[in-house]
Amino acid sequence: MKHSPALGSLIDALRALPGVGPKSAQRMAFHLLHEARADARVLSQSLAQALERVGRCSRCRMLTEGPLCPTCANPQRDASTLCIVESPADVVAIERSGGYRGHYFVLMGHLSPIDGVGPEQLGVGELETLLDTGAIKEVILATNPTVEGEVTAHFLSELVRSHGVAASRIAHGVPVGGELEYVDGGTLAHALAGRQALS
Amino acid sequence: MKHSPALGSLIDALRALPGVGPKSAQRMAFHLLHEARADARVLSQSLAQALERVGRCSRCRMLTEGPLCPTCANPQRDASTLCIVESPADVVAIERSGGYRGHYFVLMGHLSPIDGVGPEQLGVGELETLLDTGAIKEVILATNPTVEGEVTAHFLSELVRSHGVAASRIAHGVPVGGELEYVDGGTLAHALAGRQALS
Repeated sequence: MKHSPALGSLIDALRALPGVGPKSAQRMAFHLLHEARADARVLSQSLAQALERVGRCSRCRMLTEGPLCPTCANPQRDASTLCIVESPADVVAIERSGGYRGHYFVLMGHLSPIDGVGPEQLGVGELETLLDTGAIKEVILATNPTVEGEVTAHFLSELVRSHGVAASRIAHGVPVGGELEYVDGGTLAHALAGRQALS
Repeated sequence: MKHSPALGSLIDALRALPGVGPKSAQRMAFHLLHEARADARVLSQSLAQALERVGRCSRCRMLTEGPLCPTCANPQRDASTLCIVESPADVVAIERSGGYRGHYFVLMGHLSPIDGVGPEQLGVGELETLLDTGAIKEVILATNPTVEGEVTAHFLSELVRSHGVAASRIAHGVPVGGELEYVDGGTLAHALAGRQALS
């Protein structure tokens, strides 16, 4: 069955959302056009507005309105520590943990030559400019514990040290609240190798 | 962490989509504003356009552009058979099966007094007007095989017969291609009770 043109275009457009296939897109379109027309109007408008207003922070590349993101603009934050993450969602996750008071740098991806993502796409030039200001004493590499994330962390650690700044990697180990029995071997090996002395 | 206003509004608006929670909404927003800005613009525009153009078919209540949906407007379809379904997605599913050439009537829900959904909300007045034209010889009740769907089918079968029109219910039984071992008891009981003689 062919949908009418406007309905078909909406279903196609909804498939641009991550994790949305043809069936979900159709379900979303019918929901928006039938039960949730007011919500649909709000969605269309807030999307247009966000596209117009939200850009990147000129310092850390986080998605934000205005030239600086709230973290970079906050004088209470410790500007001598820089935490490098892959995505804006990682910043949100670390902020939610409440355990970090420094600044961030968002790569917006990881090294992936096959997809054409090299140092330039990750803003390494901007990172070097930041490092050269001399304000940063330590860089924490918080890329994902995946193959690509590790490769990216390794590349960045060399770069950071070549600028005379200390680099560290977030700890790999058993998640808090988990059970050893269900933790995978690679994580367990990391947890054992990274054991810390009890005083 | 508080998102900037435009980003926060977009995340809230995305939660209106069925099956999208706070984490998915955030992931969608970051994706739309970073990797998929062109797609995001298309989504915002096609949603606004669909809201403006897509309404209900004046005959069968299907979502469509223009006064009549393609099925109702098609003179090749058999106007003497009317298939009553709960949602536009059911029309799409039946059309895809290729086994039906009649018309439809879309309830846009099922009887649910607790949610304030009575016969009026399901367009029963419009259905009675259709029945009174005398063109319809049989009504096929294809509401979902759920408690609410069965109650709605029962209510409609009485209504349809009170207008002197034959009513039938789609067959319940074992799905084609499935294995008996994994079919639930209720379905198996229906399949046995509804057995058909082999010639």
